[in-house]
Amino acid sequence: MSSPSMQQPSPQLFFQTVNAYQRSEALKAAIELEVFTAIGEGNTATPQLATRCNASERGIRILCDFLCIMGFLSKEGANYSLTQDSAVFLDQRSPAYLGGATEFMLTEKLTDNFRNFAEVVRKGGSLDEDGGTVSPDNPIWVKFARAMAPLMAMPAQLMAKLVDPTADRKLRILDIAAGHGLFGIGFATNNPQAEIVALDWPKVVEVAKENASKAGVADRYSGIEGSAFDVDYGSGYDLVLLTNFLHHFDPATCETLLRKVHAALAEGGRAVTLEFVPDENRISPPDAAAFSVMMLGSTPSGDAYTFSDLERMFANAGFASSEFHELPPTIQRVVISQK
Amino acid sequence: MSSPSMQQPSPQLFFQTVNAYQRSEALKAAIELEVFTAIGEGNTATPQLATRCNASERGIRILCDFLCIMGFLSKEGANYSLTQDSAVFLDQRSPAYLGGATEFMLTEKLTDNFRNFAEVVRKGGSLDEDGGTVSPDNPIWVKFARAMAPLMAMPAQLMAKLVDPTADRKLRILDIAAGHGLFGIGFATNNPQAEIVALDWPKVVEVAKENASKAGVADRYSGIEGSAFDVDYGSGYDLVLLTNFLHHFDPATCETLLRKVHAALAEGGRAVTLEFVPDENRISPPDAAAFSVMMLGSTPSGDAYTFSDLERMFANAGFASSEFHELPPTIQRVVISQK
Repeated sequence: MSSPSMQQPSPQLFFQTVNAYQRSEALKAAIELEVFTAIGEGNTATPQLATRCNASERGIRILCDFLCIMGFLSKEGANYSLTQDSAVFLDQRSPAYLGGATEFMLTEKLTDNFRNFAEVVRKGGSLDEDGGTVSPDNPIWVKFARAMAPLMAMPAQLMAKLVDPTADRKLRILDIAAGHGLFGIGFATNNPQAEIVALDWPKVVEVAKENASKAGVADRYSGIEGSAFDVDYGSGYDLVLLTNFLHHFDPATCETLLRKVHAALAEGGRAVTLEFVPDENRISPPDAAAFSVMMLGSTPSGDAYTFSDLERMFANAGFASSEFHELPPTIQRVVISQK
Repeated sequence: MSSPSMQQPSPQLFFQTVNAYQRSEALKAAIELEVFTAIGEGNTATPQLATRCNASERGIRILCDFLCIMGFLSKEGANYSLTQDSAVFLDQRSPAYLGGATEFMLTEKLTDNFRNFAEVVRKGGSLDEDGGTVSPDNPIWVKFARAMAPLMAMPAQLMAKLVDPTADRKLRILDIAAGHGLFGIGFATNNPQAEIVALDWPKVVEVAKENASKAGVADRYSGIEGSAFDVDYGSGYDLVLLTNFLHHFDPATCETLLRKVHAALAEGGRAVTLEFVPDENRISPPDAAAFSVMMLGSTPSGDAYTFSDLERMFANAGFASSEFHELPPTIQRVVISQK
């Protein structure tokens, strides 16, 4: 006899999860074929779409039906239409287009880390002998800087307003592992007295500087080229930004870096960390917590750190206190640590 | 001004879908490492699990947290437990264990079809020049027969009871592309007067015969080896079973086969089709409708056919009528077509 609350067992979740890889591949294909842009332009039926996307009718029909099933499209009779989110983020004509992020997120250099995931779990880290994505001057970070910038414009603005709400005094800001540079640039556009020093591999700093020029802040923007663990930061910074960086390393390595950050800050200066921060249970919120899997597969010893984890690292590195902030509507969170 | 029903745009679905491939890989790894069995045995904390699964603590902790996020495990403090579905389907000690299905469903021979899915959509079918999974005597079907049998026991019983509810008269049954043989065997165990002829590639018929022996019906079980398109079926069958077979082919090819089925049936005989049958809109129910993607990637011209599609094929092949039946709680559906 089963209790009233017991449902009949179902293998549905098993099947859906086994086939989940097809969702990633179908979305990548739809972006590559410009399906969302084509529908946004008014090609709503399969024959038109096949012509516009230079693809077979059978392929387009099955792909678009699957995009409906996944929630990226709607279907009325034989006509497809964009959902609100797809119109905003997946139509190339939209200023918030972020389809290019798949160039980084689904590059084989990343996804291949998951092809023998049992062995990754056995070992406890990336199988890549060169150190995974954190190997010196890894070209993946140029791809990252190019592909991920559109995703970061909104969080960068939100973070600048959170940390520098009055925007009325001079700030010297070091942006560590700046990537596309958008977080530092967000401070520079928020506050006309903010000066940014962007640190990253040479070819990545080039991308950040391009973005600074586009944002009209090139005159307050300079670069330091090299590894954040090796180069001289200079000193007297009001803010040091650590955006999506600490998750690549184990706590001891993070603490080594944070001591260097501490030394580079002026008295009263602050370190600003933006991260995927799971709750203390490490299983919620789901998207932030799931980021630990990305770090398990792609780095030797990185992780998605909880606030307790981060607070401890900053305390061990000499910081006086750390404060936790949500950054809605993003899934990322901000920790502000006081020298 | 946005209308009250408009929500703030969110890239959440985009991110989840881009990373969905990690779900398949993590589930596959958990099955390979016997994580579910280990937890079922009472190894509920990370250190014990790491020892039992011969894996790193870091890897196990991140994997198990991800299994919680996906809904395969629960977590209380630092202890993991199986959900009801995981205990039934993913603990090797359960009679309904189906973890072995990943041996077929996630074999590279299948998943590689999706690695360049944009090109698949352009072409309108599998990129495999040999004909994808429907190439002659493809060894994948031996793997299928071994791996998928546990999944089919329940639907096989349900289908036999639907088609032969009284089970009180002699039935000669041809089971086309029998695979593991469980659908024919279901009729044989349901009705002691049912005699089964299983048709498939030689090494697959061997597997079906093994399963017939295990079910105690070997004396009413025989085989025909070869392609369903080429071999002589014999004649005078009361039932011909077409389970998960028609989806591999285009309608014209299906009709050719169905004419042959029609000829092999006795007067008053019935063809029984079990399939992933989407509704006429082709986007619901989601799991049945999504099966068309599997066929797009893995066959030259297969599909998930609607009831209208199937009804038309059977009518064109000379059948008098077709009836549609749900087969709850499975996601598959049954079409019974009268000679």
